[in-house]
Amino acid sequence: MALLSVLTPVLALVLCLVIGFLFLRSRDAETTSRAPAQTKGTSKTDFRPWVDQDLLDDTEITAAGGDEDEWVDGDDDEEFAHVPYSHPRYPEETMLQRSDNFYSLMNQRRSVRFISSEPVSRKVIDNIILTAGTAPSGAHTEPWSFVVVSDPKTKHQIRLIVEEEEEVNYHQRMGDKWVNDLSKLRTNWIKEYLDVAPYLILIFKQAYGILPNGKKKTHYYNEISVSISCGILLAALQNAGLVTVTSTPLNCGPQLRLLLKRPANEKLLLLLPVGYPAADATVPDLKRKHLDDIMVHI
Amino acid sequence: MALLSVLTPVLALVLCLVIGFLFLRSRDAETTSRAPAQTKGTSKTDFRPWVDQDLLDDTEITAAGGDEDEWVDGDDDEEFAHVPYSHPRYPEETMLQRSDNFYSLMNQRRSVRFISSEPVSRKVIDNIILTAGTAPSGAHTEPWSFVVVSDPKTKHQIRLIVEEEEEVNYHQRMGDKWVNDLSKLRTNWIKEYLDVAPYLILIFKQAYGILPNGKKKTHYYNEISVSISCGILLAALQNAGLVTVTSTPLNCGPQLRLLLKRPANEKLLLLLPVGYPAADATVPDLKRKHLDDIMVHI
Repeated sequence: MALLSVLTPVLALVLCLVIGFLFLRSRDAETTSRAPAQTKGTSKTDFRPWVDQDLLDDTEITAAGGDEDEWVDGDDDEEFAHVPYSHPRYPEETMLQRSDNFYSLMNQRRSVRFISSEPVSRKVIDNIILTAGTAPSGAHTEPWSFVVVSDPKTKHQIRLIVEEEEEVNYHQRMGDKWVNDLSKLRTNWIKEYLDVAPYLILIFKQAYGILPNGKKKTHYYNEISVSISCGILLAALQNAGLVTVTSTPLNCGPQLRLLLKRPANEKLLLLLPVGYPAADATVPDLKRKHLDDIMVHI
Repeated sequence: MALLSVLTPVLALVLCLVIGFLFLRSRDAETTSRAPAQTKGTSKTDFRPWVDQDLLDDTEITAAGGDEDEWVDGDDDEEFAHVPYSHPRYPEETMLQRSDNFYSLMNQRRSVRFISSEPVSRKVIDNIILTAGTAPSGAHTEPWSFVVVSDPKTKHQIRLIVEEEEEVNYHQRMGDKWVNDLSKLRTNWIKEYLDVAPYLILIFKQAYGILPNGKKKTHYYNEISVSISCGILLAALQNAGLVTVTSTPLNCGPQLRLLLKRPANEKLLLLLPVGYPAADATVPDLKRKHLDDIMVHI
């Protein structure tokens, strides 16, 4: 008995160490699943004041885990020879004219929820996806998958999933800060355009790749890369005279991924209903920030 | 003494609980600092198999915290009246032609590190920034700041910061997996174009806004929004006949933010050196994925 009472503290101490170890592992698992080098990166930067006083968010994390900082398309000398680069060169007047015209075109773009059911040529959609595929990406991983849905049944299944989740958001996920948005959420609840639009484009980011040996290969900057390609996609839609509304369905990604049979390394980033605007389409009469409010020149 | 040996296990147990509690708190702090509603979001979704088997990354986190899922530009009925929307409507042949042309133009875009020192018209740059500012953003927060640097001294200070950090990355931050990239990193170490390019465009995302009452207003989807606007910016550069290389300098954000006197709610997302390509510019002879490798039609 005396022996036991002497041993108990030792046992308790062991238990204590085990629990500590478990928490440590769970934390590592959590972070490494997102960015292998985060712990390394931050531990190095902890001593540097400007890091402490700055926001610590994923850009930092991703950056810390990044292979290289430049997105030199597939810059792998072993893989690719370097070739001379030729590029269209315009006189200054032409450059001004072209940049003016492109700005006016893009400035007409608006998020439109009232989409016509009128069919749209598949060839145009193909060109638009090809254009999105010209975006740069970290280490030229091209970590995007574009799922173009025109099948009415699938579109309707997508609508059911999105609307059901909206309801869950409404009933379960809303914190106090959302109370004021009730009415707004209600109006957003019904997504008729998911049935009506001739195409739904679901953009998936590939969070990691699979190497020949079956191991996971992290795709650094995959969210930034795919978002950039979506920016080019939106430009291509506008250029072709089509409209969409940029949407990120709350928590629908996993169900939609299964519905569309996408692999586990892919994650839904955006859902874009695409078509011509409805004849009676309206948009909020908003203004955009002025140049001085978004640009600083040094 | 007997009393003590009876108490020791109790004390050890208390110690054990304290340690466990501390780990829990540190984990919460870590997650909430990034996404206030994550814990709420995940706790609700933990029971749903498709969430468990899916990647849990920030899209999920941001989504769980999201105010609304549609980026209806400034869709706030109290603030904006809705007005009829008119949009350029092209015949199908024209749409095909336009989408073909835009694809060919964008498909010529490459990441170019060899930039000419030749000056570029400020008006063209202004148009390009204005074009980037037409991107959609979560709840029309327009959470972007574009810092355009042409001042040689500032460009050189930026170069010093970036190259110094590259050295830190090289000496301190590299894990075993980076060993093979040594030579590549060395060559990327010197960023001559940061001095040479007539313009450096540093794109900052505003992770949160400041309300009139001084409180923080989270900008949901701010990274996706700003990345989309960068995609449109890259399209505008290519349209004007200019080149750049998309770069995300590792851990330089905080120092560059201070150098450029940006507020604490802003975080560097990308750094783009901009200009004409150098006469002897080369690029790796890479191919892009075929349409079938990036698109699925259902």
